[in-house]
Amino acid sequence: MSSQPQISADSVIDLVEGLARAGRVAQRVLARMPAPAKEQALRLAAAALRRAEPEILAANARDVASAETNGLSGALLDRLRLDSGRLAAMVEAVEQVAGLPDPVGEVIDSATRPNGMVLQRVRVPIGLIGIIYESRPNVTADAAALCVRSGNAVLLRGGSEAVHSNRAIHQALVAGLTEAGVPADAVQLLPTQDRAAVGAMLTAAGLIDMIVPRGGKSLVARVQADARVPVLAHLDGINHTYVDHAADPARAAAIVFNAKLRRTGVCGSMETLLIDATYPDPHGLIAPLLDAGCELRGDARARAIDPRIGPAGANDWDTEYLDAILAVAVVDGLEEALGHIARHSSGHTDAIVTEDQAAADRFLSEVDSAIVMHNASSQFADGGEFGLGAEIGIATGRLHARGPVALEGLTTYKWLVRGSGQIRP
Amino acid sequence: MSSQPQISADSVIDLVEGLARAGRVAQRVLARMPAPAKEQALRLAAAALRRAEPEILAANARDVASAETNGLSGALLDRLRLDSGRLAAMVEAVEQVAGLPDPVGEVIDSATRPNGMVLQRVRVPIGLIGIIYESRPNVTADAAALCVRSGNAVLLRGGSEAVHSNRAIHQALVAGLTEAGVPADAVQLLPTQDRAAVGAMLTAAGLIDMIVPRGGKSLVARVQADARVPVLAHLDGINHTYVDHAADPARAAAIVFNAKLRRTGVCGSMETLLIDATYPDPHGLIAPLLDAGCELRGDARARAIDPRIGPAGANDWDTEYLDAILAVAVVDGLEEALGHIARHSSGHTDAIVTEDQAAADRFLSEVDSAIVMHNASSQFADGGEFGLGAEIGIATGRLHARGPVALEGLTTYKWLVRGSGQIRP
Repeated sequence: MSSQPQISADSVIDLVEGLARAGRVAQRVLARMPAPAKEQALRLAAAALRRAEPEILAANARDVASAETNGLSGALLDRLRLDSGRLAAMVEAVEQVAGLPDPVGEVIDSATRPNGMVLQRVRVPIGLIGIIYESRPNVTADAAALCVRSGNAVLLRGGSEAVHSNRAIHQALVAGLTEAGVPADAVQLLPTQDRAAVGAMLTAAGLIDMIVPRGGKSLVARVQADARVPVLAHLDGINHTYVDHAADPARAAAIVFNAKLRRTGVCGSMETLLIDATYPDPHGLIAPLLDAGCELRGDARARAIDPRIGPAGANDWDTEYLDAILAVAVVDGLEEALGHIARHSSGHTDAIVTEDQAAADRFLSEVDSAIVMHNASSQFADGGEFGLGAEIGIATGRLHARGPVALEGLTTYKWLVRGSGQIRP
Repeated sequence: MSSQPQISADSVIDLVEGLARAGRVAQRVLARMPAPAKEQALRLAAAALRRAEPEILAANARDVASAETNGLSGALLDRLRLDSGRLAAMVEAVEQVAGLPDPVGEVIDSATRPNGMVLQRVRVPIGLIGIIYESRPNVTADAAALCVRSGNAVLLRGGSEAVHSNRAIHQALVAGLTEAGVPADAVQLLPTQDRAAVGAMLTAAGLIDMIVPRGGKSLVARVQADARVPVLAHLDGINHTYVDHAADPARAAAIVFNAKLRRTGVCGSMETLLIDATYPDPHGLIAPLLDAGCELRGDARARAIDPRIGPAGANDWDTEYLDAILAVAVVDGLEEALGHIARHSSGHTDAIVTEDQAAADRFLSEVDSAIVMHNASSQFADGGEFGLGAEIGIATGRLHARGPVALEGLTTYKWLVRGSGQIRP
């Protein structure tokens, strides 16, 4: 008999709906907890995680052993694996979220109407958030902490490779949270790895208020394609850096090198370099990358800069490599760079390097990406680097929240109207 | 031969996608126009509408004649019909939107990071908005004005009853806007009434950024069910007023009467009245409504207040009457009122009447509707009454914008990062 017994599609939908309803009830309690109580609950959850280290590492060892048996690749195994150091980092992340300022209750704006009614827009939690993620088990603690801190309930669906790790982490978290009076159902982990459960979450409109997928491109693409619940995510980070003719060469070379090679696997890494045709030192941008082993794929004018640059195909302008590969094009000035970015950017992070303030202002104004930078490395595209404390993800959609999404992005608002008997004429 | 030739489903999709792409190109131009230019464009559009009065009224007369031939009901005919007065109101509405403060470019917040990078979140237009509406032709001018004022392009799809009116209004609007340099494609009216075009709009993810349905419940329900593009709308306004035992009887009676009967067809009208069992003068709330011809449907305790109250069925607690009908229940205090509202509210507008500040505070805090009121009539649920100048609609979804949505709700933001050569360690 399989350890993953088949359940019928209807049962899976019933299961997910039941969990979602329980989560919504718990959220109503959580929403009323004052900020210090939520902070305290997260500190107790962090302590419980720390205490459960033996159980969590044992559970993780089971997952790692299965993954090795199943022939998981080295990178996936590395993401899955926990040790004392990684667990300590997970605990610290929960404590850091505990200490963040509470967004709930913030008065966004207020007004007194001529008839004396007083209006306020006040931040409130969104409700029940669904998180669908892959192998990294620290997401279980991370995402739960951000949701609880902002007064939201959460329904977690982790990857099957990490099933034992996630259960152990979840159990410890809930033990800590409930000590402080948070209802256990405020943080729920789907008890089945049945893939139909993901489908049930994606279509639970009215029961789940928002889905955040965290994982590889195929997961995000599936979620975006199938969801009937609003999704906060980015699919691609096809990020451009444009080096203008008026760029400072030393600054430009440092930014370009960092934007591509500091870490190639992060969503903020540069994937396309645009060089102004009149930029004085294109080879100074290109040679360090090639020397460091980066593969470059260029258009005809770019290939003239260095014979080591290979030819770019039509797809290269629309590819997120997440690797030591870079597409390079030579463009005739800012106008052509803006046109290229408008056609090919995924709306994540695009940057200009220039000492010409007017060119920078125009770039910042006209490029319509979630993050637009001047004279800085696109690798700064990160909630922590933006001072947000922690992020639930980066969003390239246009509504609700854009770019790095932290606690504020996990809230909405309501209008409060205080009257003294006003009736409408 | 029909005046509405059949086009294939593929052609309709191609048509809508072509219009959307053209709208997006025009939006990039509009997004760069400074506030005074957009204001001027709307003033010229208003003037052009005024000049086109003969053409618009003639086109409207054709629509009204067809509608009469097709046996349209009196209320629908009334919504469709234009005259000099209504046209003047339409022109005035466009001028009012022209004069609203521009949300685009507003700096939401800013910060300087320890490494010297300066961050700003700046409001920008959303992009291309789709408006799907029914018989009232003034929506053509209204919605277009709000979108242009906030730098968005718009694709309008009006009702087939108003096809000639909408075309005449659209033509005048575009004539005025283009005089000021707004590209004609910034405001487009779908040239076909083929219903498949609505489906094509609803599924044009990536081409249309947001859909706003304006019309009856069946239109909104279809849009919400079928859309793969984010939707800003409300389906129901099942609004409660709870009269607490500590309510002032004169104030409570005035608010209840106004909330139900000022206008019964608006989304902010009260549909359920909850009366605290210990409220001293329930008959004083009920009798004026009955005397004014309002039908009341109550639970057993409510029916004991006045023999003219009929029995409520299970559905009455979940029905938006939009008529002179009211569901009435007697509840045992605030706690039971909160429970009833949590189960039955559509999240639009709920109100408490009480002189007990603690009860009011708890109600305002715990009721999780877009608008929550104390001692005021729910009929104030309106962007104009909230001082927003004009509204594109009222939203009961939880993300992006909630309650009355005006210019700010037609914007999103981007992050601007200004550096001086920062690279990430």
